[in-house]
Amino acid sequence: MSKFVYFVTEGKKEMKSLLGGKGANLAEMYNIGLPVPETFTVTTEACLKFYDDDKVIADEIKEEIFENLKKLEEVSGKTFGDLENPLLLSIRSGAVVSLPGMMDTVLNLGLNDATAEAFSAKTGKPVFVYELYRRFIEMFSDVVLGISRHAFDALVEEVKSSKGYKDTNEFKLDDQLSTIEKFKAIVKKERGIDFPQDPKEQLLLAVEAVFSSWNNDRAITYRNLQGIPHSLGTAVNVQMMVFGNTNDQSGTGVAFTRNPSNGNKEIYGEYLINAQGEDIVAGIRTPQHISELQQAMPEIYNQFTDICETLEKHYQDMQDVEFTIEDGKLYMLQTRNGKRTASAAIKIAADFVNEGLSNKEKALMSIDVNYIEKLLHPTFDTAELASATPIGAALPASPGAATGKICLTSQKVVELEKAGEKGLLVRVETSPEDIEGMAASAGILTAVGGATSHAAVVARGMGICCISGMGELRIDEVNSTITIGDQTYNEGDYLSLDGETGKVYAGQIKTQEAEITDDFARVIEWSEEIKNLSIYANADTPKDFQKAIELGAKGIGLCRTEHMFFEGDKITSVRKMILAANKEQREAALSELLPYQYEDFKNIFTVAPDYKISIRLLDPPLHEFLPHSKEDIEVLAKNMGVTYEVLAQKVQELKEFNPMLGHRGCRLAITYPEIYLMQTEAIVSAACDANAKAAEIMVPLIGEAKEYEYLKELIDTKMEEVFSAKGKRVPIKVGTMIEIPRACFVAGDIAKNADFFSYGTNDLTQMTFGFSRDDATKFLGEYQDKQLLEADPFKTVDVPAVGSLVQMAAEKGRVTNPELIRGVCGEHGGDPKSITYFDSIDLDYVSCSPFRVPVAIVAAAQAVIVNSK
Amino acid sequence: MSKFVYFVTEGKKEMKSLLGGKGANLAEMYNIGLPVPETFTVTTEACLKFYDDDKVIADEIKEEIFENLKKLEEVSGKTFGDLENPLLLSIRSGAVVSLPGMMDTVLNLGLNDATAEAFSAKTGKPVFVYELYRRFIEMFSDVVLGISRHAFDALVEEVKSSKGYKDTNEFKLDDQLSTIEKFKAIVKKERGIDFPQDPKEQLLLAVEAVFSSWNNDRAITYRNLQGIPHSLGTAVNVQMMVFGNTNDQSGTGVAFTRNPSNGNKEIYGEYLINAQGEDIVAGIRTPQHISELQQAMPEIYNQFTDICETLEKHYQDMQDVEFTIEDGKLYMLQTRNGKRTASAAIKIAADFVNEGLSNKEKALMSIDVNYIEKLLHPTFDTAELASATPIGAALPASPGAATGKICLTSQKVVELEKAGEKGLLVRVETSPEDIEGMAASAGILTAVGGATSHAAVVARGMGICCISGMGELRIDEVNSTITIGDQTYNEGDYLSLDGETGKVYAGQIKTQEAEITDDFARVIEWSEEIKNLSIYANADTPKDFQKAIELGAKGIGLCRTEHMFFEGDKITSVRKMILAANKEQREAALSELLPYQYEDFKNIFTVAPDYKISIRLLDPPLHEFLPHSKEDIEVLAKNMGVTYEVLAQKVQELKEFNPMLGHRGCRLAITYPEIYLMQTEAIVSAACDANAKAAEIMVPLIGEAKEYEYLKELIDTKMEEVFSAKGKRVPIKVGTMIEIPRACFVAGDIAKNADFFSYGTNDLTQMTFGFSRDDATKFLGEYQDKQLLEADPFKTVDVPAVGSLVQMAAEKGRVTNPELIRGVCGEHGGDPKSITYFDSIDLDYVSCSPFRVPVAIVAAAQAVIVNSK
Repeated sequence: MSKFVYFVTEGKKEMKSLLGGKGANLAEMYNIGLPVPETFTVTTEACLKFYDDDKVIADEIKEEIFENLKKLEEVSGKTFGDLENPLLLSIRSGAVVSLPGMMDTVLNLGLNDATAEAFSAKTGKPVFVYELYRRFIEMFSDVVLGISRHAFDALVEEVKSSKGYKDTNEFKLDDQLSTIEKFKAIVKKERGIDFPQDPKEQLLLAVEAVFSSWNNDRAITYRNLQGIPHSLGTAVNVQMMVFGNTNDQSGTGVAFTRNPSNGNKEIYGEYLINAQGEDIVAGIRTPQHISELQQAMPEIYNQFTDICETLEKHYQDMQDVEFTIEDGKLYMLQTRNGKRTASAAIKIAADFVNEGLSNKEKALMSIDVNYIEKLLHPTFDTAELASATPIGAALPASPGAATGKICLTSQKVVELEKAGEKGLLVRVETSPEDIEGMAASAGILTAVGGATSHAAVVARGMGICCISGMGELRIDEVNSTITIGDQTYNEGDYLSLDGETGKVYAGQIKTQEAEITDDFARVIEWSEEIKNLSIYANADTPKDFQKAIELGAKGIGLCRTEHMFFEGDKITSVRKMILAANKEQREAALSELLPYQYEDFKNIFTVAPDYKISIRLLDPPLHEFLPHSKEDIEVLAKNMGVTYEVLAQKVQELKEFNPMLGHRGCRLAITYPEIYLMQTEAIVSAACDANAKAAEIMVPLIGEAKEYEYLKELIDTKMEEVFSAKGKRVPIKVGTMIEIPRACFVAGDIAKNADFFSYGTNDLTQMTFGFSRDDATKFLGEYQDKQLLEADPFKTVDVPAVGSLVQMAAEKGRVTNPELIRGVCGEHGGDPKSITYFDSIDLDYVSCSPFRVPVAIVAAAQAVIVNSK
Repeated sequence: MSKFVYFVTEGKKEMKSLLGGKGANLAEMYNIGLPVPETFTVTTEACLKFYDDDKVIADEIKEEIFENLKKLEEVSGKTFGDLENPLLLSIRSGAVVSLPGMMDTVLNLGLNDATAEAFSAKTGKPVFVYELYRRFIEMFSDVVLGISRHAFDALVEEVKSSKGYKDTNEFKLDDQLSTIEKFKAIVKKERGIDFPQDPKEQLLLAVEAVFSSWNNDRAITYRNLQGIPHSLGTAVNVQMMVFGNTNDQSGTGVAFTRNPSNGNKEIYGEYLINAQGEDIVAGIRTPQHISELQQAMPEIYNQFTDICETLEKHYQDMQDVEFTIEDGKLYMLQTRNGKRTASAAIKIAADFVNEGLSNKEKALMSIDVNYIEKLLHPTFDTAELASATPIGAALPASPGAATGKICLTSQKVVELEKAGEKGLLVRVETSPEDIEGMAASAGILTAVGGATSHAAVVARGMGICCISGMGELRIDEVNSTITIGDQTYNEGDYLSLDGETGKVYAGQIKTQEAEITDDFARVIEWSEEIKNLSIYANADTPKDFQKAIELGAKGIGLCRTEHMFFEGDKITSVRKMILAANKEQREAALSELLPYQYEDFKNIFTVAPDYKISIRLLDPPLHEFLPHSKEDIEVLAKNMGVTYEVLAQKVQELKEFNPMLGHRGCRLAITYPEIYLMQTEAIVSAACDANAKAAEIMVPLIGEAKEYEYLKELIDTKMEEVFSAKGKRVPIKVGTMIEIPRACFVAGDIAKNADFFSYGTNDLTQMTFGFSRDDATKFLGEYQDKQLLEADPFKTVDVPAVGSLVQMAAEKGRVTNPELIRGVCGEHGGDPKSITYFDSIDLDYVSCSPFRVPVAIVAAAQAVIVNSK
């Protein structure tokens, strides 16, 4: 039989998924002897059962709740609903990960007209008791009955202003009583019911409200954004009330055991004397800094700092705690690992190891790896940013902060850069032809396109700040102005972009460069010691490669050759090649390209000739190199010296219904082997001349072993030709992208002739799901809203299918070729959750954009720790 | 150690894959005591090794050849290259399946200047011997040295005309000698070598030539067309020569043991007196009918008919034999199962069982199942066809023969049909809006589009003859004329289309309807007894369903609902639905569609309410229902009463980069559940009113269990609503298409709530290979030419990947749902090879177009026989 409710003595911190974070930690604190009010926890499984049972709390759960309630009564010596000595309860939600928007807390539950009266008589403090009752009605009405607090607050304000009170502390008994009556009238009006008087009914309603709030809109949206599974459910903690508002020897507070913004070793928090927890949040009274407690209640303060130390030692991490002091006695109401800024995370991790509070593994696990990339980008000067007002906001597509002059063309940015100035490229959208301008810009702003638009993807790869999809941005190319909202700016005016928030500011804001601290270096060093996966970067230029090496990459896992085709005059030769009427013409055009490609590759090899550098042969369909609008075709036809009809005809011929599944990748080379032969010649010549020690040639889009064998033979033959001509040999591996589902099934055959498998998990995901990434944005939102997908499969690898394919290919490949190297070069290569999976199936490496490299290094170390559990 | 050469005594008919068909059957005949000249066979494995060794015959193979040659010399008492009693050889290729274009035969090998002279002296027949030598030089030069026969033939003609001979039989010795010298001069001139005099060199060169011819262009093309694996290789048969040209008691012939065109029980063939095998093929002398042999050589004739009977009994099938008579002694040179027409195949199969020569299984296996569909379509009157001259030809896209009046629009065809006349729809290409006209037409002719164009696919489904992609066809809609080549025809003129050959004829040709003979019905009956798979049809209309039932289908495995959306006024409501600005407008438009859909479904259920009828919910992306050209958008906007901008905007919004992987199938219903709700209401209401007993609702494009669960719940709820409203229930199954690779991985979860899996192997193939079917034609030809794919994966299911996915899903599904029904509704459902695979993995059914149903029935029975081996 399932057990749906746990008494505080039965729990421990490892039971988080069952008891929620709050419940598990309350039990842990209780059981290591810290002062925690008696509690029981209704489990997440009870929540899931509640949903399975069509949102009804099953009788067996109710029974367990009431059994535990009895226990609570026994240990507290109070009785729920009793007129003599009533037990009052706080009800708090407790998910595995805390969610904004979920029902949080109901205090003072158990009061009703009769208990309030009896309790007043017993304590002789009617004002205090009716204060509790009044607060309870308001809270319960708000979070359980769903009546807006607004009406209640207005009533309280009315009393305060008519009586000239500053605070409800000044309320007299008749103020409390009359307000309570008015509160009850609101409930009657809004919900048509009398305020529930039965304490047990109150309790069950509150539990139900917590369960229901798991699936309110805000909670769902938050989980979607954060990639938190919808299937976790929430627990509910039912706790004996302790009162911070009993007298001036009472109070309530929150604190971090270290400074969460810079990581300094100091208790950081605030408290209020004679108050309940909600008063701190409400912000009506200004709380005092925690250090002042030392003067006010020195014994309590010392006890509290001791507890903080105990907790840090016990949890081996910085803690975020809540406490209440009832009449000179300290109670701990919550502890959890504290949220912190990226830089604090690094410092705390390093300090904990220094102080012997934690080991490297534990310290590494305390770092939210997603923060790491933020440390690598420029940020705005905090003071200047605080005083700036944004003129608009859109999608934060690539992190960092940038200030520069508005440039409407790539040429303009490049000119500015040459003049030593910073430009921001502002466009409706970017295309591959903008590559040079993008690389030269300090930041990019576009009017259309999402997180996977060309601008966003390229900017992230280059580590350049980008804000995309600003619908209100209008670009007037004739007058060289842009308009955002009703403000117009000229080309050359300054703007500032915050890639973290998506906000755009007029004028300049000072930026500060990222710096890699010693603490950060240590964290990377530990990660290098622990991790199994090698980390490479996706880089197409010497500059990106250089940056990647600085950030810790040990080579290039994916060097795309097609971007190179757009730079400078090369595109003309590319287009000649495409328009070629026969093999001879095609070879002539390719021979024009050869020296360019040679130069491209040589420059890359020269950066670090000893490093792995894996170059992918041409991948996109040829039509990507041709224009598509009538106007553009006309212009190009003139430039190329062909008729409009000839060019338009070629564009038409190359058009595809589903280019994603069309004539691209190695399929191009099956039709036109000369393309890959030229690229092979360029790579091998450059590798020889640069004395490259670990060059690799990667064949994309392989789906069948014979297809690969055919190309492998062509490549090998050409390679031998070049070696003979050069009179020297360098080691060059040849392998495949694995990105077609079929390739995973025939991986054993492919591996016989392949030195490596490089998984293109982007395409593999597209084909395995049947989702075109470019189109899926139209319907994937609906999937997330309806909780039909646990996570965005383009962000985090889908384990059941895509992951299984990756694993299948990895295993089959090793059977026929025990030396086979297997790694991921798709965007999942920089995603921590995906990295954890790739480590678990023993892949050899991941490759990601340069600025994700440190993230990947730390994530790979965390993966080892997680997977070894 | 491998064995590369087998002596005739070592083989048997089951060793076909090693010895080739010819070699295996020679051994079989030899070993059951029939007169076969001594032979040895170089195996297909030797051929494969030859290719592995870079086209060199390995020494070990040469050794085995010469060992076997020695054996041949021993049993024949003759010696190869000997001057006294030379052994002469015939060298014949012998692939597992015979291939046109491969090197076939070299006769008289072993002759050279010296042996010819000695042999002449010994036999005293120098004219005969030098005739052999002359023929040998010509054949060897042609097939081994690759010198065109043309020059040789011209020389022979010269001698004949200068001497006034009718035939080379009249050649005198000096004619032979001088011609031989001239032949040798040609070899010297063309190849720069003396004609090879060493018999062993001749032998090895001939073997090498046979091996090489396996991969000549014609053989490769043929294998590609026929789907024969390139990896089989060919064997080479080396046989002691027997001479049909010794004297008038000699001869050579070919025969079928039954009439191959109608199946009648009579020996059918021809022979030539005093001739070698090649003379029959050369066609210089007219051969005599085999029956004349009875008069000419009665004993030989009786021996031969006895042998034919023996062979039929032994092989349990009609045989195609070659024989030679040397000086009154009969030798069998070949036997194989004879090719036959479709109707002969059926008659022979039935007769063999009647005559007790074969059992049902064996008889069924003798039928080439691909022929069966041909028996179901009309054909032209043979006499009229013979005298007709085609005016053009294009792709035979759907079989059958049709005569009718040219119609340039669908309306025209429909009008004609109402008037009781037959129309041919002649269009540049067809679109879904032509459905009504296509259904009413006798045949369809299009100017563009291939075997998978809309016209081709729909025509095949409807069993209507179609010729597509006729590049030379021009349509002048203004003058209502069409032009083919330089001939112009008016709308209303008669044309005739031959869907078997792709030929188009002017005027009328009488057609005869297909008739299902008793023999055919018996074959179907046996198949029904033997097969395991159920056979259903893909049918969208009552008419198609009716036809499918007549042809043996037991229900509908796939009823597409989208075609219905194009008929009549429905498209207007569909478009209103698409243009709806909100859910209310969308529901209003859907409620207009509801009665139409109800009517569509009721009409289908009414045809056979007890049969399984599986209806797929809407599948295509919405943009397929809207026009795309500016002109068409303008017209529609006017008709719909919206502005051009509104409609153009919607068209733009719905545009997708990769529609195949876009917003379609169940994804539409995740966004707009009301579409599926309307369809469910229509299906369930219609099923209730028609009292349907086995209706099914099929959800397309499922990739995740939760996605299906969500829709299943919607469907179930709506179904219950309809049942309550109707006050009755009918059994309705709900299941999914399995066509997304991911679905196969999570099939266990999906199956929990699914009654059936219907594999859409077309889409599954597209995604597994990453091939867009619409685009892949551009490069798949190159793949076949380069032997990179064994077969067209859209025709025959790819076992390693697509097959594995199907099997994986079938197995996982049954684990969680032992009642799960699993079948294929993609085009592979009608492909015999694929059916064999689907039977082997224990699927429950296949569904195919109505005219493929009999094919599928027989193929399913053959599959059981093959798979039980």
